[in-house]
Amino acid sequence: MNSSSRSKASQKRITYQDCEEFLLSVVSGNQPAHYHLMTGGSRIRMRVCLDMSLCLGLNDEDAMRLASAVELLHNASLIHDDIQDGDSLRRGQSAVWVKFGTNVAICTGDYLIARAFGILANISSPNVLPQLLEATQNAVSVTVEGQNADLTAKEHISPQNYESIAEKKAGPLLALSLELPLISSGRLNEIPTARHAASSLAIAYQILDDIKDSVEDATRGRPNLLNLNLLDRKPEDAIKLTQARAVYLIKSCERDLLLMPTVHSESLQGVIRKLLFLAQGKQCGGS
Amino acid sequence: MNSSSRSKASQKRITYQDCEEFLLSVVSGNQPAHYHLMTGGSRIRMRVCLDMSLCLGLNDEDAMRLASAVELLHNASLIHDDIQDGDSLRRGQSAVWVKFGTNVAICTGDYLIARAFGILANISSPNVLPQLLEATQNAVSVTVEGQNADLTAKEHISPQNYESIAEKKAGPLLALSLELPLISSGRLNEIPTARHAASSLAIAYQILDDIKDSVEDATRGRPNLLNLNLLDRKPEDAIKLTQARAVYLIKSCERDLLLMPTVHSESLQGVIRKLLFLAQGKQCGGS
Repeated sequence: MNSSSRSKASQKRITYQDCEEFLLSVVSGNQPAHYHLMTGGSRIRMRVCLDMSLCLGLNDEDAMRLASAVELLHNASLIHDDIQDGDSLRRGQSAVWVKFGTNVAICTGDYLIARAFGILANISSPNVLPQLLEATQNAVSVTVEGQNADLTAKEHISPQNYESIAEKKAGPLLALSLELPLISSGRLNEIPTARHAASSLAIAYQILDDIKDSVEDATRGRPNLLNLNLLDRKPEDAIKLTQARAVYLIKSCERDLLLMPTVHSESLQGVIRKLLFLAQGKQCGGS
Repeated sequence: MNSSSRSKASQKRITYQDCEEFLLSVVSGNQPAHYHLMTGGSRIRMRVCLDMSLCLGLNDEDAMRLASAVELLHNASLIHDDIQDGDSLRRGQSAVWVKFGTNVAICTGDYLIARAFGILANISSPNVLPQLLEATQNAVSVTVEGQNADLTAKEHISPQNYESIAEKKAGPLLALSLELPLISSGRLNEIPTARHAASSLAIAYQILDDIKDSVEDATRGRPNLLNLNLLDRKPEDAIKLTQARAVYLIKSCERDLLLMPTVHSESLQGVIRKLLFLAQGKQCGGS
């Protein structure tokens, strides 16, 4: 590396790794929360939020805080989901409730939710803080509504109902990764498009998971779009239809993003490419 | 009532009942949360926070938001505590986890935590919002720490350890009722005294609960100060000692409040009078 590129490198903006270190430092006072984050995870929401924030000209510190807040909320939901679904493994390691007990796992999720709101407090423009809080609170409320609907859903619901639940359950926190930077940079008029893009992608993600998990979901009596499509179709037609719906939703997300020409997230584009590959590939799995 | 007193009455500031209605309206979108609040509760934290806010000259809307935020957090902790302790009754009705299932109850607590932060968003002075968020986040984090310590505590711990757990578990949200109004009115230097007062009162409250629940706690192997004192004392001495500790802590709280001469909460004075009566009475119970 010559001196010019070294100098350029030293001017580089904040990285995913910097943000990861901040994220871990935020939870360093709570062992189960720290354990959970150390098990890994793709940090999609953190990455997308960081990309968007930097792209929209927010400062490094704000970008890191917004990105970490969304990621903490997502991980709170995973810890509580694992209790609710009785999933003993997360990222190939013991789920928090298995390692520390259900009671501690409930507290750990609570802690992460509170920490997420807490790290928004020190954003550099307090004048946008009310809107950031409102959007964050709303994202958690709708996620809870979706999670409740999912927990009580019968196995055989309509595909429309299925998608509505998936949208509420997984859409809001992905959308929040785009919303928080848009709010912070005053681009409120782009929020509806961002939400729509995130909803489409979240539903598509869930559908691809369903193709992978169709046997397990059938065994556990859980709603699954492929299984719903299998009710009145031959297997090959049901798979084609399910994949086609995922492709349509991913392309809808891409179209929405084209309507937001000034923003760009390499991480989001990566997710879209990966999901499209899975939806169009002959083998779907391993997402 | 003559016309002058009617006119005076019409100028009366916001009441506990107004605040209660606001509280219920905040959770109207979530049935289990609404059910839980409708089961009753003394709303001590809401009342104390409302008293303090009005006494310190905050406007009605802000007073109502601060008071409701603290009360929502307290109720989130009750819903999750009932799951953790396996308590099937709350205020003489089914606990949320019994009525709606454990999974929905976990979500309901999450929802209330998010709503609490959300209603702080619209406070009239956004410049104090960062400090309000920080204090609120800190109160939840320390409560979680205390709850975790309580869940994992052995039956036979030292009285000091016992009090430290009780302080962390029950002190922060009571303290928050005083802290939020103090922050909003710029009286930051009174916060340490307010915290100390709340801690003393929270521990005293727990001790009086222990006297009432000593048999049940012994059966369940849970730490209980009276039972710890019974280990090396005659029953009458153990009860006297336990009561004396509660009285000392309540009086310590009273002394702290005398150091904050400009603030006054009728609700807090009511709690103090009630606890002192219980601690000094011959029969302790029914708190």
